[in-house]
Amino acid sequence: MNDKKRESNNKDLIAALRNCGAIQIGDFTLSSGKKSNYYIDIKKASTEPSTLKLIGKKAAELIKSMKVDSVGGVELGGVPIATAVSLESGLPMILIRKTSKGYGTGEMLIGQLGKGNKVVMLEDVTTSGGSVKNAVSNIRDEGGNIDTVITVVDREEGAKENLKSIGIELVPLIKASDLV
Amino acid sequence: MNDKKRESNNKDLIAALRNCGAIQIGDFTLSSGKKSNYYIDIKKASTEPSTLKLIGKKAAELIKSMKVDSVGGVELGGVPIATAVSLESGLPMILIRKTSKGYGTGEMLIGQLGKGNKVVMLEDVTTSGGSVKNAVSNIRDEGGNIDTVITVVDREEGAKENLKSIGIELVPLIKASDLV
Repeated sequence: MNDKKRESNNKDLIAALRNCGAIQIGDFTLSSGKKSNYYIDIKKASTEPSTLKLIGKKAAELIKSMKVDSVGGVELGGVPIATAVSLESGLPMILIRKTSKGYGTGEMLIGQLGKGNKVVMLEDVTTSGGSVKNAVSNIRDEGGNIDTVITVVDREEGAKENLKSIGIELVPLIKASDLV
Repeated sequence: MNDKKRESNNKDLIAALRNCGAIQIGDFTLSSGKKSNYYIDIKKASTEPSTLKLIGKKAAELIKSMKVDSVGGVELGGVPIATAVSLESGLPMILIRKTSKGYGTGEMLIGQLGKGNKVVMLEDVTTSGGSVKNAVSNIRDEGGNIDTVITVVDREEGAKENLKSIGIELVPLIKASDLV
């Protein structure tokens, strides 16, 4: 995807995320002690229906050009996003549990995944990409085919490279560097 | 709500749930060893967008007549349902975590709950009502006002009475006794 096109298309999404308080621009000290010139509370977007609907439309638009059987959502933050995309696109949904505790193999996924089915996974925010990487493994372990993850906001802190190492292209609707 | 009206309105929903395999009628032996003449796999409905959309419309219709500020969804099964209702109704969403492990008070809820805000909670399937009861307590502990829970299917195994004891009316879109 052309980066310039994505950015110019998503100015309305950045505005919506700022309006609902999901993105704040300023000087912040994160709980890690690190300084940041933006702050993300992405749940303010996924719990605000007009913003969530816009996210669903943007992601469904991207997916339209791919040959996709299902959309996947990682527990918990990815679930409202994947639901919005499923409703917008008409594609069935696969939910991926975050912890295997108490669940056997095959129980990590909720929804019907046929062998070789192509899944695009949705996440609300990506940092290092660790939890998405696990979810990709779960999809592949169950015979699913996945090479793309769409994230609403990528903090650009390693997720892209981390996912590339397992053959996944990370497609952010918005990148941290778009914000500042 | 008038029971007859609800049933006659929801024949299309029962048909949709049967079509997507979320409800099967027949002779089943449950994992508990108990016999049942129906089987519910409600996740087949929440991961199938046309059925989920129908559920969202039915629940949003019910909510329209109440004075509601937010819709609540209990992790994990209630989240796609609450998301569909939020998108359909335009009401903001509150997500309620199921376990307090690793989360402090106030972190059990995701989304913005103002003091005295009226919440209607959504659940996919209710049996004894235990997890919904906990979620109601979390909403009340954070200052929310809740007296109604809408469930897609009530198995009629105690949830109604259990929730009544804490001042909650359980409103099922479908009851087990509607099925057989």
